[in-house]
Amino acid sequence: MKDYIREIETALEGYLPEGKLEEQKLIDAVRYSLNLKGKRVRPSLTLAFAELCGGSAQAAMPFACAVEMVHTYSLIHDDLPCMDNDDFRRGEPSNHKVFGEDIALLAGDALQSMAYEAMLSDEAVAAVGGERAAKAARILANRSGLLGMVGGQVIDLSLESRTVGIDVVQLMEEKKTACLIEAACMMGCVVAGATDDQIRAAERYAHAIGLAFQIVDDMLDVTSTAEELGKPIGSDAENEKNTYMSLLGLDRCRELVKELTDEAIGALDAFDGDTSGLADFAVQLANRRK
Amino acid sequence: MKDYIREIETALEGYLPEGKLEEQKLIDAVRYSLNLKGKRVRPSLTLAFAELCGGSAQAAMPFACAVEMVHTYSLIHDDLPCMDNDDFRRGEPSNHKVFGEDIALLAGDALQSMAYEAMLSDEAVAAVGGERAAKAARILANRSGLLGMVGGQVIDLSLESRTVGIDVVQLMEEKKTACLIEAACMMGCVVAGATDDQIRAAERYAHAIGLAFQIVDDMLDVTSTAEELGKPIGSDAENEKNTYMSLLGLDRCRELVKELTDEAIGALDAFDGDTSGLADFAVQLANRRK
Repeated sequence: MKDYIREIETALEGYLPEGKLEEQKLIDAVRYSLNLKGKRVRPSLTLAFAELCGGSAQAAMPFACAVEMVHTYSLIHDDLPCMDNDDFRRGEPSNHKVFGEDIALLAGDALQSMAYEAMLSDEAVAAVGGERAAKAARILANRSGLLGMVGGQVIDLSLESRTVGIDVVQLMEEKKTACLIEAACMMGCVVAGATDDQIRAAERYAHAIGLAFQIVDDMLDVTSTAEELGKPIGSDAENEKNTYMSLLGLDRCRELVKELTDEAIGALDAFDGDTSGLADFAVQLANRRK
Repeated sequence: MKDYIREIETALEGYLPEGKLEEQKLIDAVRYSLNLKGKRVRPSLTLAFAELCGGSAQAAMPFACAVEMVHTYSLIHDDLPCMDNDDFRRGEPSNHKVFGEDIALLAGDALQSMAYEAMLSDEAVAAVGGERAAKAARILANRSGLLGMVGGQVIDLSLESRTVGIDVVQLMEEKKTACLIEAACMMGCVVAGATDDQIRAAERYAHAIGLAFQIVDDMLDVTSTAEELGKPIGSDAENEKNTYMSLLGLDRCRELVKELTDEAIGALDAFDGDTSGLADFAVQLANRRK
């Protein structure tokens, strides 16, 4: 997949107000988390699908930035003491450790509204039209919200106190992780004017790589070393957490990742352009060691 | 102003998924706060301005519900222990007292995305068109976000540790309270196809009643009794908080409320229809005793 990271980071910075304002601490908190060096997977997928469908990365950029803003808000809120209570994120102090819980909460809230402001700005709407901008923004709202990412978070919380089957674990992972990746890929198609078949194919690709990503995560928590992974291992087993690994075992997980990766690559048949970058990306995710 | 409360509450309920789902606790938490009996001021204003500009309340309803969803999310997050740490809201236990802090945080997050899903749904877009739906949703994102309502909340937090002049208090109140009322009124105009002059007039009306509302709040905290107000009084003075009352005194506050109410009523001249309900509403807000 093409390297869009620098363009994305420049665009994200452009959404932050300049100058010294009364709400500066909030702006600093938002900037802090947007600037944490990540792989920018979701916005890169938005841009890649937009270009694959004949659109421009420039027109798709507000939508790419929006999905990264929503992802970033979810990380800030996940780290809060009342949630996962994580002091670190990507090796840096988490937002509330730097700015306090109140500001971190509000920075997350502000990032969510910034996402919609970006997608529905005059420029974004002028570039792709009101109907497409509205449709893309609705997809993001749907996949990130009550029955999407946030819903997945709630199912995850509920797993701490009950034993469930693989169907509930899958539902949780689909919502918690795959949903936002689906939004990223589908939005790229929508703003570029793709067909409904192509939008559905992007959804299948995203669903498959999102689920594979989580299964690999579960596997690495058992098979990797803390040094290799760069974070503590064995936490799932220690917490007696229901995961793909605990419910299905290593061999079946390996098979599933292979099946999902094939499914993702197969879904790319719906597109006429060069899909090799997106196919390679699916394979890389499956083979990652950390 | 016409009584829209029942229609609004029916419409809000319609956005909640039916049946027993894995994320039921989240849905229950969202429903709990949406159902707390309020005056539904903001969504009523959206509908009133839409009808005043020749639109239908039905077409404007998703936008009215969206502003109430955003208002509701802000109340849930404001009550959290890391913010105001309020155990009660409208006489009922606050969301986190019933559902826990984690679910309350996520219910607020989900309500924000629900607002955009409502405004950008197929039905909403079909009724008002993609351009208007996108513009209205952008106004809500702008007024509720980084430099709007959330920004006002951050300025308010900053006042706990510093002394400021009336300009900063005004900026805080404008953002914290008036901004969302502006969005409510402006969105009603936008979805009904009002002129730019009318949208600006609705903004002026909303700004004036929003600010007057806050000044009356400050006044009642000093002049009212706890019995009359139904909540403790004197908290601003006790916290040595900078308010309109502490900085300007009672007489100047009374004058200001009068001026703002006149300004609100004057702004209604931009509309051809019957504005008496909206004018009465401004007067009622100014004269309220609780």
